[in-house]
Amino acid sequence: MSGHTRRLTFWFEFASTYSYLSAMRIADVAAHAGVEVRWQPFLLGPIFAAQGWTSSPFNLYPAKGRYMVRDMERLAAARRLSFHMPDPFPQNGIAAARIALVALDDGFGPDFVRRVYQAEFADGAAIADTAVLAGLVTACGHDPARVLGLSRTDPIKERLRAATADAQSRGIFGAPMFETADGELFWGDDRLDHAVAWAQQL
Amino acid sequence: MSGHTRRLTFWFEFASTYSYLSAMRIADVAAHAGVEVRWQPFLLGPIFAAQGWTSSPFNLYPAKGRYMVRDMERLAAARRLSFHMPDPFPQNGIAAARIALVALDDGFGPDFVRRVYQAEFADGAAIADTAVLAGLVTACGHDPARVLGLSRTDPIKERLRAATADAQSRGIFGAPMFETADGELFWGDDRLDHAVAWAQQL
Repeated sequence: MSGHTRRLTFWFEFASTYSYLSAMRIADVAAHAGVEVRWQPFLLGPIFAAQGWTSSPFNLYPAKGRYMVRDMERLAAARRLSFHMPDPFPQNGIAAARIALVALDDGFGPDFVRRVYQAEFADGAAIADTAVLAGLVTACGHDPARVLGLSRTDPIKERLRAATADAQSRGIFGAPMFETADGELFWGDDRLDHAVAWAQQL
Repeated sequence: MSGHTRRLTFWFEFASTYSYLSAMRIADVAAHAGVEVRWQPFLLGPIFAAQGWTSSPFNLYPAKGRYMVRDMERLAAARRLSFHMPDPFPQNGIAAARIALVALDDGFGPDFVRRVYQAEFADGAAIADTAVLAGLVTACGHDPARVLGLSRTDPIKERLRAATADAQSRGIFGAPMFETADGELFWGDDRLDHAVAWAQQL
């Protein structure tokens, strides 16, 4: 009913293949539906570790990993996106996630996030590499020295830790995850449209 | 191009919640698209055990389990299906899967399979119970003594074991799984429409 509840929190992890698919379309899908998106980076590593996983489930369970790659190839092709598995997989997305927090503060968050995913899954770039990240900030029209400097400060590091703990306390166990204002969770790119429709009705 | 390749193998496991969603709609979706469905029961237990899981991942990973229940509730409501979690979960579906093989031989497979899922997830019945299963066979218009008797013979037991081994060798790690004639796998009820569209183009 009230405008401010028609929003969706987009919980994403830069290592996550299916988060790439959602990052590239959520702004358009949500805008079309009149739903506001809150972009929220977090880390799956600590959440996986808490349930005994030492790596991505796609590495731990090879049949599932092979399936995911083929599924991503098919979905990306249907959406005219490039997709190549990063090597190594998963990439370490901590630095990118910290920069994303600064970029979101400074109003270029979605642009930066999409560029990271594009670099990682389409262009084969190493997203833990400082030079790569600096280049993406520059491409967004911002000063990489200032942005990367801020991203390494304690308040930003603490915000990423807090976001990850918050995700875990909300029952978030994977990415992408979409959360509506009433606390409903929708997991996976294939639930994005359902989540947006849910948010519209609040 | 040729008619006989426009088919889809529907790999289902009676304990699987999302297989319920697919079982209730696959006949209609596929018929509408001119795609033939091959119904194939199998067991996830041995496949899970081979990767070190002693139960359903929804039991092993509680956050994922809670999410699945809520996701199923939302999806079932949207499709006007009843859904209640069986107690205990997962149910033992071996006897039902053996009977399903007989029912498929005898031409009432889809009817029986839908009745099992309805009993398990809508009506709260125990699908390992012989009386329950006999009642479902009777409701399909067949003789439960004959059908249950056949289902306990060695050839049927061996066919279910072979189907499960076949699933594993094809890289099947969950259910429902849809397999097209060219060997593509599509996992989950949310991939059914993609799988049918893929089968249509062969």
